[in-house]
Amino acid sequence: MRESFCRLQSHLERASALGAALALFSWDSETLAPKKAAQYTSKAVGILSGEMFGALVNDATRELMALCEKETDLSLEEKALLRVLKKQFEELEKLPREEYEAYQELIAKAPSIWNEAKEKQDFSLFAPALKQIVEYNRRFAALRAEKGQRPYDVLLNDYEEGFTVDVLDPFFAQLKQEIVPLLRQIEKNPQPELPVRRCSVEKQREFNRFLAEYMGFDFDRGVLGETEHPFTDGLHSYDVRIATHYYEDNPESGIFSTIHEGGHAIYEQQINPEYNLTLLGGGGGCGLHESQSRFFENVIGRSKAFWKPIYSKLQDTFPEAFGELPLDGFIQEVNRAQASLIRTEADELTYSLHILVRYELEKELMEGSVQVEDLPRAWNEKYTEYLGVTPQNDAEGVLQDIHWASGLFGYFPSYALGSAIASQLFACMKREMPLEKYLEEGNLLPIREFLREHVHQWGKAKTTGEILRETTGEDFDARYYVEYLKEKFGR
Amino acid sequence: MRESFCRLQSHLERASALGAALALFSWDSETLAPKKAAQYTSKAVGILSGEMFGALVNDATRELMALCEKETDLSLEEKALLRVLKKQFEELEKLPREEYEAYQELIAKAPSIWNEAKEKQDFSLFAPALKQIVEYNRRFAALRAEKGQRPYDVLLNDYEEGFTVDVLDPFFAQLKQEIVPLLRQIEKNPQPELPVRRCSVEKQREFNRFLAEYMGFDFDRGVLGETEHPFTDGLHSYDVRIATHYYEDNPESGIFSTIHEGGHAIYEQQINPEYNLTLLGGGGGCGLHESQSRFFENVIGRSKAFWKPIYSKLQDTFPEAFGELPLDGFIQEVNRAQASLIRTEADELTYSLHILVRYELEKELMEGSVQVEDLPRAWNEKYTEYLGVTPQNDAEGVLQDIHWASGLFGYFPSYALGSAIASQLFACMKREMPLEKYLEEGNLLPIREFLREHVHQWGKAKTTGEILRETTGEDFDARYYVEYLKEKFGR
Repeated sequence: MRESFCRLQSHLERASALGAALALFSWDSETLAPKKAAQYTSKAVGILSGEMFGALVNDATRELMALCEKETDLSLEEKALLRVLKKQFEELEKLPREEYEAYQELIAKAPSIWNEAKEKQDFSLFAPALKQIVEYNRRFAALRAEKGQRPYDVLLNDYEEGFTVDVLDPFFAQLKQEIVPLLRQIEKNPQPELPVRRCSVEKQREFNRFLAEYMGFDFDRGVLGETEHPFTDGLHSYDVRIATHYYEDNPESGIFSTIHEGGHAIYEQQINPEYNLTLLGGGGGCGLHESQSRFFENVIGRSKAFWKPIYSKLQDTFPEAFGELPLDGFIQEVNRAQASLIRTEADELTYSLHILVRYELEKELMEGSVQVEDLPRAWNEKYTEYLGVTPQNDAEGVLQDIHWASGLFGYFPSYALGSAIASQLFACMKREMPLEKYLEEGNLLPIREFLREHVHQWGKAKTTGEILRETTGEDFDARYYVEYLKEKFGR
Repeated sequence: MRESFCRLQSHLERASALGAALALFSWDSETLAPKKAAQYTSKAVGILSGEMFGALVNDATRELMALCEKETDLSLEEKALLRVLKKQFEELEKLPREEYEAYQELIAKAPSIWNEAKEKQDFSLFAPALKQIVEYNRRFAALRAEKGQRPYDVLLNDYEEGFTVDVLDPFFAQLKQEIVPLLRQIEKNPQPELPVRRCSVEKQREFNRFLAEYMGFDFDRGVLGETEHPFTDGLHSYDVRIATHYYEDNPESGIFSTIHEGGHAIYEQQINPEYNLTLLGGGGGCGLHESQSRFFENVIGRSKAFWKPIYSKLQDTFPEAFGELPLDGFIQEVNRAQASLIRTEADELTYSLHILVRYELEKELMEGSVQVEDLPRAWNEKYTEYLGVTPQNDAEGVLQDIHWASGLFGYFPSYALGSAIASQLFACMKREMPLEKYLEEGNLLPIREFLREHVHQWGKAKTTGEILRETTGEDFDARYYVEYLKEKFGR
């Protein structure tokens, strides 16, 4: 890199270090921090977020950016650095720092309030905090919006560039149109109740550790922890952390959470380590990130080929739960399509309907046509309408996801986009390698290598669009996803 | 607090928030962070340490300090705030920030190097890093020293004010003079080899959690984790973390580590929460802090009265290991005096000799009369001379403690001082309450309350000297410790 860029990079080191600290606080608060810590810790997190704001948004950054923009023949990394910085800079510069700091303190505290409300199945305990979070998001979006831009589009753009309401509305409409009839078809044949498969949490820990390692997660550069709501967090590619969860009466929940998060984590671990603690570190757009988790979880993780080499290990670890269930039965079980209440436990077919509910509600919240206090009612109505099931309490309804407590408005569509991108990449991979054969041989290396080469290593150095075009030769196309679902669930 | 002090407090908030982040990094790196993370994370820690340096040492601090010093009729807290700030300010202001930052990066990385060297029992792997750490400490001490001040005294003062070489030399000389003859006396009657008591780590986790709770550790405001070298860390009084360790073949090691660290942790949890995230938060001098851990571990934790209400619980949890051992036998076992190699496993009598070795070596390292490469030899010689035992490898010798890897030169004497202060407080408590009766009843509340009232709640608002005088009516006096040891081990 030339001198101007080196100066810019080193000017931004403080922001990166603060970013690593905030990532650690975020991981810690969800996995380990004691119950009552947040009331003080959130204050520190607010202050450090303000510091990070200051480290990024200042005259020196502006001047160095201008200096770098004057350079010609930019390398891939240099171009990307400017693009990513500009995006982050513009996300922040119009916000008053004090408000940003207060907001960060709020969303550092809110997950512990959400957690308690969920435990008590009582949305009203969480509503006041959520109301504040929604207000901040509306206000920040309004401050940041270009002339005529929808506030919700401002937020959507933070997570996956270019996927605005005008793109997502028809995308979801298409999904709804294809999925609902398929689901109705399937529901015509009532499916038997599944037996409860009990597995000790201790044994699940052991098996999920094996599973993560089998997928290719490197424990010398990563951690597998536990939490209420599974997630993956990373300080840099040498410290990537999965938090999964274990339910004694539902081992499959832990298994597919681990595989899903493992997909995120392998992405983070395979990013070029030279990007560590720079703006290019960490995965690209959230839709692309979710494509990696959904690819591992669903496309390969629920396939017979994936389980063939390791199913006996599952049976040996839990003889009582799985000893009598043949591989085919297991595969059938983990691919059942059935409308249900909880997104993270949902099958591939109905999953996007869960996202649709959230997408519509977020849009309405941001437009002001739905109020926070109306959410439980609106949520339940949409579940009844789209999925045909109605939550019996807030914990299995509007309180099920942590995202809004963490201030993530505009994130949910990434899951559906991720599924679609995963299908598009899958179609390409199938053309380029004997995917099933590798899976059956327990050889995941060529799959990881394909993803490393085309997706992972680039971190934020390439956009989702660039990666899709360079890998598949096409722009984003939801058709692959619809075809994938039809083929899998139409049978 | 008046306006000048409020301004000062709020000016220092950034430093406190950064301090909390660094405490979290430190906890995390010892307990959870993956093996290879340190090489990048230490860079972020270095930068954040530099930020903290800058947040503390600047003209605004200097001006606000001067403004506050002009005020009259200072309250206890105001006086303390100035005292603590002045000490921290003076510790840093003479150091070049870049060197300080590089040093912090080094000691953030060094524990992982130490860990590997210890695993491989090979001091030479750790020597280069240690050499750098020693050089930095010598250089920083020289920069900070007043005219004629010994470099080692500069460091000692960081951990417990006023306890210089001139105080510690006669203190250790007295201990040596009293302990060595007692030990020789005891060694005349050869003690039988103790049986190995095997206990599963899982069950130990369960029992140690019970034990910490029994002592009064509040799990809503604290965490019990695991590590190679036990320690306690705190972000504030609502987030205090114990890291203990479990050996399958030595359950007593875990038990007394937990009780020891529990003493530190209860101190931190009982500090006035108004001091959280201010300079007055966290415990006072390290000697005082160690007095609380050593008090719980030894003075009460090894007493028959403490175990009477809970010994059956230990036996029920580990029937194979302790089922046949009566309470008296257990108490005898955990109070055996016998020269040994590992400090953290040492009995109360020989413990101070372990400290003496480190004290003498640190003094010589800082004076330059011993070099890093000579340490293993010098260490082994001193162990042979003072304790009559010789390490067979570096892991059970010079590599056993993490302290030097973390840059803690001058800390070790705190352990011996802590034992002495614990004895002095114990003598006072025995006069003021039926201590044994409370312990036998399983009622630790009056003991915690006594410590809260006289010691814990004050955080850094009172000095060790003030606390000792106000509680016991006397200055520090090593006599109580010597008498305690003679009474206990002379029998």
